[in-house]
Amino acid sequence: MSEKRGKLIVISGPSGAGKSTVIQKLMEMRSDLCFSVSATTRAPREGEVEGTDYFFVTRDMFERMVRHGELLEHAEYVGNYYGTPSRYVEQRRAAGKHVLLDIEVQGASQVRSRIRDAITIFVIPPSLETLRQRLRDRGTDSDTVIQNRLKRARAEYKEATFYDYIVINDDPDEAAHELDSIITAACCRFEERGELLKL
Amino acid sequence: MSEKRGKLIVISGPSGAGKSTVIQKLMEMRSDLCFSVSATTRAPREGEVEGTDYFFVTRDMFERMVRHGELLEHAEYVGNYYGTPSRYVEQRRAAGKHVLLDIEVQGASQVRSRIRDAITIFVIPPSLETLRQRLRDRGTDSDTVIQNRLKRARAEYKEATFYDYIVINDDPDEAAHELDSIITAACCRFEERGELLKL
Repeated sequence: MSEKRGKLIVISGPSGAGKSTVIQKLMEMRSDLCFSVSATTRAPREGEVEGTDYFFVTRDMFERMVRHGELLEHAEYVGNYYGTPSRYVEQRRAAGKHVLLDIEVQGASQVRSRIRDAITIFVIPPSLETLRQRLRDRGTDSDTVIQNRLKRARAEYKEATFYDYIVINDDPDEAAHELDSIITAACCRFEERGELLKL
Repeated sequence: MSEKRGKLIVISGPSGAGKSTVIQKLMEMRSDLCFSVSATTRAPREGEVEGTDYFFVTRDMFERMVRHGELLEHAEYVGNYYGTPSRYVEQRRAAGKHVLLDIEVQGASQVRSRIRDAITIFVIPPSLETLRQRLRDRGTDSDTVIQNRLKRARAEYKEATFYDYIVINDDPDEAAHELDSIITAACCRFEERGELLKL
């Protein structure tokens, strides 16, 4: 049923949960899945491509998009705006593609309240101790930065009460399999296929 | 998390939808899944084993089980009672096994209203025309019997409004994969894992 409308899949999770690796594996598993492209006021970095990595816009343009309700969600981060353009998501979904958003808890909460049939998934490490260890093993963060990340993870856990699913990233292949299953199951729901019973 | 309580999975679908084949494939895929054993007043057939194929009981015993609320669901079929003993299902679930019931729409409706967290799945052929063709290809049923089976399928479709999922059995491997995904996804639900966010 390739003509069927695609799903909106929202994935969040604390930094260090290994979300990027899991999402990459998921993307390799499903050709019916595409990544959302965000709008941002941040300057393009070397090699970043307009419309692929981001839609690069001015602050004025971004604020106009917010006023006109053209963003599914948006947030400010280190002085720059980031947001998800509704139109891009809508076009991909209409073309039968599932669209994946990798956004923070606040943004996911905005999507949750706007898009009824969004599938929201919170990816976590097996424990905060594992998270601490993973951040240490990376070797890129100071102890203070690690402490802050853990503090932030705790805060996110408290706010993450509205997600439909929780995926524990112990083994990335297993976690990607769970994400894949969640999408497949969502497409089998009665609300999706009930019309097949009308003869 | 092997100590976790197993799920109750209820599968129904019209005769000729190919349910048995799909369920067999599913059982081979998941070692955490077991089949429910029904109680019946029908006489054992050659080779049938008490406690494996059925729990064979007298009419008196069956009716007492019904009165005492010991059955999750029950129905009369061609003069014999069939039912699902709650205790067996409960024991397996407590041991961390998912328990699969293959029952008709009426029985599934009884389970649906009693077991809040049951997962109910309706397996259908791609179309009633496919169903007709499959029944013909079997070569075991007369035209009249096939007509009756189709009529019954139509009636079941009308009643099957309460299922959580619909699985279309076009390719049995694909259908088994969908069932597998539905179980995996159900185990990832927030209600199952939300306690992991309480630190």
